[in-house]
Amino acid sequence: MSAESEVETNGTPVLVRFQTDPLSTSVSEVENGDVAAVEIVAVAAPKVGDELKDDDLLLAATLVQDAVHGQDIGFKTDPASVRAYRLYNHRAMRWGLYFAILLNLCLGLFEKPATWPLPIWATISVEGLVHAFYIFRFFHGKHFAKPGFWKDTKHVVVLVTIILTCLDMIIYIFWINLAPYAHPVRWSRALRPLYMINFAEGRQIRRAFRNIRRTLPGILNVLVLFFCSVLLFALMGLKIFQKRKLKNLDGSPYFEDYWESIWALYVLVTTANDPDIMMPAYDNDNWSALFFVVYLLINLYIFMSILLAVIYNNYKKHLKNEVRMAVISKRKKLFQAFEILKVQKDGKEVLTEERWSLLMKAISNKRSGAQIELLLHVLDEDGDNCLLRTEFLNLVDLLNVPLTEVHDRKTLFEKMCPSLYLSRVSEVVKMCVKHRFFRYFFDFMIVVNAVFIGLSLDDAEWFFLVLFAMEILLKMYAYGFRQFFSLFWNWFDFLVIFSALIATIIEALLQEWQDESNTLDILLVLRVLRLIKIIGSIDRFKVIVMTILNIGPSIITYGGVIFVFYYIFAIIGMEVFSGLVAYYPYDTKNQSQLFCGNPALNGSEFARERYCSNNFSNILRSFVLLFELTVVNQWHVLTSGFVLVTSKAARIYFFTFHLICVVIILNIFTAFVLEAFILEYSLSKGKFEHRIEQKIKEMGYSIGQKTEPGPLKMSVKHDKTGLVDNIEEHPTEEETSTSTQEQDGGLSRSSSNTSLPDLALEKGMRFHLKKRSRKKVEVLLQYMFENELGPEGLLDIDDVTNLPEEDVKPFPLTLDNVT
Amino acid sequence: MSAESEVETNGTPVLVRFQTDPLSTSVSEVENGDVAAVEIVAVAAPKVGDELKDDDLLLAATLVQDAVHGQDIGFKTDPASVRAYRLYNHRAMRWGLYFAILLNLCLGLFEKPATWPLPIWATISVEGLVHAFYIFRFFHGKHFAKPGFWKDTKHVVVLVTIILTCLDMIIYIFWINLAPYAHPVRWSRALRPLYMINFAEGRQIRRAFRNIRRTLPGILNVLVLFFCSVLLFALMGLKIFQKRKLKNLDGSPYFEDYWESIWALYVLVTTANDPDIMMPAYDNDNWSALFFVVYLLINLYIFMSILLAVIYNNYKKHLKNEVRMAVISKRKKLFQAFEILKVQKDGKEVLTEERWSLLMKAISNKRSGAQIELLLHVLDEDGDNCLLRTEFLNLVDLLNVPLTEVHDRKTLFEKMCPSLYLSRVSEVVKMCVKHRFFRYFFDFMIVVNAVFIGLSLDDAEWFFLVLFAMEILLKMYAYGFRQFFSLFWNWFDFLVIFSALIATIIEALLQEWQDESNTLDILLVLRVLRLIKIIGSIDRFKVIVMTILNIGPSIITYGGVIFVFYYIFAIIGMEVFSGLVAYYPYDTKNQSQLFCGNPALNGSEFARERYCSNNFSNILRSFVLLFELTVVNQWHVLTSGFVLVTSKAARIYFFTFHLICVVIILNIFTAFVLEAFILEYSLSKGKFEHRIEQKIKEMGYSIGQKTEPGPLKMSVKHDKTGLVDNIEEHPTEEETSTSTQEQDGGLSRSSSNTSLPDLALEKGMRFHLKKRSRKKVEVLLQYMFENELGPEGLLDIDDVTNLPEEDVKPFPLTLDNVT
Repeated sequence: MSAESEVETNGTPVLVRFQTDPLSTSVSEVENGDVAAVEIVAVAAPKVGDELKDDDLLLAATLVQDAVHGQDIGFKTDPASVRAYRLYNHRAMRWGLYFAILLNLCLGLFEKPATWPLPIWATISVEGLVHAFYIFRFFHGKHFAKPGFWKDTKHVVVLVTIILTCLDMIIYIFWINLAPYAHPVRWSRALRPLYMINFAEGRQIRRAFRNIRRTLPGILNVLVLFFCSVLLFALMGLKIFQKRKLKNLDGSPYFEDYWESIWALYVLVTTANDPDIMMPAYDNDNWSALFFVVYLLINLYIFMSILLAVIYNNYKKHLKNEVRMAVISKRKKLFQAFEILKVQKDGKEVLTEERWSLLMKAISNKRSGAQIELLLHVLDEDGDNCLLRTEFLNLVDLLNVPLTEVHDRKTLFEKMCPSLYLSRVSEVVKMCVKHRFFRYFFDFMIVVNAVFIGLSLDDAEWFFLVLFAMEILLKMYAYGFRQFFSLFWNWFDFLVIFSALIATIIEALLQEWQDESNTLDILLVLRVLRLIKIIGSIDRFKVIVMTILNIGPSIITYGGVIFVFYYIFAIIGMEVFSGLVAYYPYDTKNQSQLFCGNPALNGSEFARERYCSNNFSNILRSFVLLFELTVVNQWHVLTSGFVLVTSKAARIYFFTFHLICVVIILNIFTAFVLEAFILEYSLSKGKFEHRIEQKIKEMGYSIGQKTEPGPLKMSVKHDKTGLVDNIEEHPTEEETSTSTQEQDGGLSRSSSNTSLPDLALEKGMRFHLKKRSRKKVEVLLQYMFENELGPEGLLDIDDVTNLPEEDVKPFPLTLDNVT
Repeated sequence: MSAESEVETNGTPVLVRFQTDPLSTSVSEVENGDVAAVEIVAVAAPKVGDELKDDDLLLAATLVQDAVHGQDIGFKTDPASVRAYRLYNHRAMRWGLYFAILLNLCLGLFEKPATWPLPIWATISVEGLVHAFYIFRFFHGKHFAKPGFWKDTKHVVVLVTIILTCLDMIIYIFWINLAPYAHPVRWSRALRPLYMINFAEGRQIRRAFRNIRRTLPGILNVLVLFFCSVLLFALMGLKIFQKRKLKNLDGSPYFEDYWESIWALYVLVTTANDPDIMMPAYDNDNWSALFFVVYLLINLYIFMSILLAVIYNNYKKHLKNEVRMAVISKRKKLFQAFEILKVQKDGKEVLTEERWSLLMKAISNKRSGAQIELLLHVLDEDGDNCLLRTEFLNLVDLLNVPLTEVHDRKTLFEKMCPSLYLSRVSEVVKMCVKHRFFRYFFDFMIVVNAVFIGLSLDDAEWFFLVLFAMEILLKMYAYGFRQFFSLFWNWFDFLVIFSALIATIIEALLQEWQDESNTLDILLVLRVLRLIKIIGSIDRFKVIVMTILNIGPSIITYGGVIFVFYYIFAIIGMEVFSGLVAYYPYDTKNQSQLFCGNPALNGSEFARERYCSNNFSNILRSFVLLFELTVVNQWHVLTSGFVLVTSKAARIYFFTFHLICVVIILNIFTAFVLEAFILEYSLSKGKFEHRIEQKIKEMGYSIGQKTEPGPLKMSVKHDKTGLVDNIEEHPTEEETSTSTQEQDGGLSRSSSNTSLPDLALEKGMRFHLKKRSRKKVEVLLQYMFENELGPEGLLDIDDVTNLPEEDVKPFPLTLDNVT
């Protein structure tokens, strides 16, 4: 293999360079944590007809699959290792790990202080089992790993965490048996979320963490300046107010101690004690207000805005970098797979049809021969039934477009008694149901129902329930079960209405249940949520609703990040504060109940505001408390409560939480939403469409989501996240028409088949192009950067090392994981 | 004049098209509110040597001046109108207007309810005088205006406001004389800020308003969705909690009334009543917390982030548009000026040297002949001492670069007694002072002093005061007064230290004054602010400090926007709520004092929290109250107070204020800071440098700010805003060296003169290029878009009409002003 191979195809020079070591003739890699790659031994390209070894095929299939799933685990390329790697990636093994991690995290619910207490032996043995699985999984991964396994911090972190946890468990068992009075501590529980991040499967969340970590240095400068400013103002406040001997509302001294002043002013930046902190000085001298106004202008409005700007700027930069690396890694895997599969034909290195179908079969058993042929047809630009390297590099994007065969379209009714179903009356009913006025009518009834619920006119409940049940049954009849349940909102309607119906019937039967018909009320109200469906179908709100739905999956990633911190802080909080504050119903005559069972809180603001329920008595309560701290308001009162029952050092806990979760993570979240929205907006202008989709459209294989004749569509695809794409809506009239215009090559089911290419037609196959505004943010980003990465989707692999220093910082392996 | 004139210059085709009406042969204009232009009658280009009419010269000079100042008032081009226009723009007339507007606004301080009450006849007569001036100014502007004056809404608004105010004044005078018991209302006072916006001088603030107005439609969709969501959740909350018959902390019913639920949930989005609103339900049933958590996740975190994203996206788009229009307008004016001045020479239309100096003299008397020659030299690219149209279009950018002649550099001391000042000892002293260790030492002493102040070690005060006074005197001696006072921080040091010194001396003399030495304390503390100087000189904080300083002037524009709303709300608030809540010192025994003198507040949270000072008893107090509402925390408590003393309708006032000032304007402010920061960041990467600056650098005329040999620099220029550029800092060693490398053509004063072009050298002239990171945001934006507007800075005037619909929306005249 040459160090620089220039392939001339159809006059377009294809420049693909590998940095090769001429001695070892192995492809060198970009070694970057997630962007790892497989070593392949270069062989002279075989000729057409040469046998493809099973092991090579397996390796190529594995590489392609990894590229499709965006997987990046470095593995050895000998057959045994490849097999081990495939086993490691087997669905059962993955779900086993997810289950183990979930189980491990859930133990928090059953350990003291527990929501549902279980004996110690039970939780400890479950934790032991889980860790046994962790250890097995870890050494399984180690087995096929390339050299350099230990240089990857995520592996080190996992191993250290396992060791520490096992040590802690052993110590704990001795502790509770030998010295239970010494308040045994299970400190390693705070380490549990680390498994979420550091096992190779936590790719998304690890990426989010990496992004946060890279954004930190930029934030740090602003934070240092900000804290300097707070310190300065605290000093000024001290000098201005100290001599006036003022008192706070609760009688405590006002700006008389430097540390207290700093704390008060930090709380003021969070606005939690505004205007209270100002009032004593303002009452004393009106001009004192100036001090606080200037302080807030500088520290709240300017500094916090600058902080957001720095975070946004850094976030964008690192996101770009992340996506670029992912694209490069994907291309590289495909390149390597091609190197394995290629044969020499007419002086060109190509992938023959025969090898293509072997590869496709190796990737998935489910594809029929016709499908495989069709895919080749789409990729093959010059029509010679062979794939050039450049054509092959589009494979991943093609596999990401769902392809299904059109199956039997008959509904159950039709099969059961066709004569009735196809009768004239039935046809009229079906036409009515499919008519848009049917939808308008029921949308209107939902509004009416909402008004009735709002006015508590409960008598009409039966009427509405029956009406909506009718609607669902009619829709089922007209569209068939399969099509009916392919839409998210139909599922929603079905569940809500029928639960309500059943609950109402039960209620009517058992009159005494009526008193606490809370569940029923919630079901009633959930029905009102169907109003969202109506709002979402109004054009002007669509971009917004789409943005919210599209960023959904990524929000879950950020939810994961927040959850990691919540879990750690909850465990620490429970170890430190549990049992110090307790909730008793306030209506008892017992005075001690009024101060949360702790005399230290007697008369405190914490007790007066009745915050006793906000405590660390179990992990769920801790989460609620931490959420309240995240919302910020009154967090200083919550803090003051726990300061009173312990010491002022408790402030460190609350301050750290505020800094991490509110100042840093929430701002990063905002930056993410900003970026996602702007992307979505550019998207709604139709700027990004992948060339593979264009190709499919040109070739006329696509069946758009909007080309269905009725108000329901069937092209729902379940991708990995499954969140965005399952949600469908009624198409409005305009949409249906525009989309048919857009995809003039595409065919709706009802139209004649003549315009479809024979191959696809014969088999009744369709590609399902997602509507443009339905793509995942990540996919979009990838598309954007692929366009940036070079014309015609080619990649000069040297780019990885030659990228401008500023954009691509080296990915030091030692920093690759959060430790 | 042809409808399309293609000028071939040096082989680069210059395409400049005007849409001309062949019959009237007058240039048609883009008529867009601010982007107005002057009609010029096309004449055949005269030949070299033809006399230039004075009137034409005046018109051309006016056009160039308008382009330099970014002024855009349409005026007739006959000589009388031009003269009237120049008078209208005279500095005295402008400042007269500013003073009148200020006076008018300040009347709020003296009218009842007043901070400093004045009799009604006094305020009314001042207001009458101010309005007489407004009327004069208005008709003066009308006098020279082009046809279409009344189509511009800003003029209509001004006139209507004047008429309404005069009417109101007359009614008020009758009212107080005939029926004073009927509580006379001066409602037109709320209209006063409209003058700030709508007089032609309020360009910046009008632009900000226009930007906000254009951003509104995009926001509206999100707001509607958001309110729908709040209404839905309120309904759900009602259904879930109504039957439980819970009570709030103050005993009021909990989620039992739909409107109250909506209000409570709206307040919850502002986080002001979190967790209090949740506690009763949470105490009752732990799972109820879920309702509030979901509500906050959706409405606070998602919707508010989306809102910011929408605002940011729209803001960016409109900003781009604004800047583009400004650049186009500027170019057009220059183009027209060139049309007037051009002569035919060698088949090309050029501006001769003779006419150039006439123009420059007409623009400013202060320029010497040599300066004018030098400017021509910079603009003239082909060295023929004539300006082509393309060269002339750069004039504005050149005039924006400050140019000064190097004057006598001798300090006062040197002139007074040169023998002493130049003596050996004196030289050593000067060298010491200019040495960087001198600065390091005093920076260190500032830190030490701050620590002493923090620890209240007052005994060392004298020592520090004398030390810092010494520092200032030494610096003055070494650098001379002029250079010393050219730096912001030196002024600051001087004022703080000498005020403190004088105050301390007075204090020492008058011992009894010691008790309330508040002023002195503030001066002491201000000294600590010098720490900022040290922080700002650390490289890593520089970008942040620079951003904050650079966005300063624009923040003032947003301050103006906020002020407009504050003033309007303050006037309305005073008319509605004044006298209902009053502050009395809390230490009296009189019970009524404890509830702000209003029995309705007895026992209310408002009174318990001691918020009595937050009232509308005068305009300053109103501003403080509105600021507290802007900060949001506890705004519902403040609202509840005013609801108790009036009715629930008072909520409308507080809700409207929150929506406008917090939800909309503060988010736009954040968007502005985001954009400014990202611009600043790109800037610090050195991406934007104007070609005129490059040219000057290449030609070696520049004297950078960093080329001064000592720790002080002299190239401080006062531009119109004067805020950014006055602030200088000590250069660090590295900077001095890098900047000399950067500007290798430039010359520092201490080096030999040989490298300077003769012309500039002879006269000792220097252009003062501002340091890159010191430019105003507006100028930067302009530079960015000029680069976008076409290569070589050419503009196809047709662009104005041909710009893509999406980016440049038509500027309907009827919407040009906020009404």
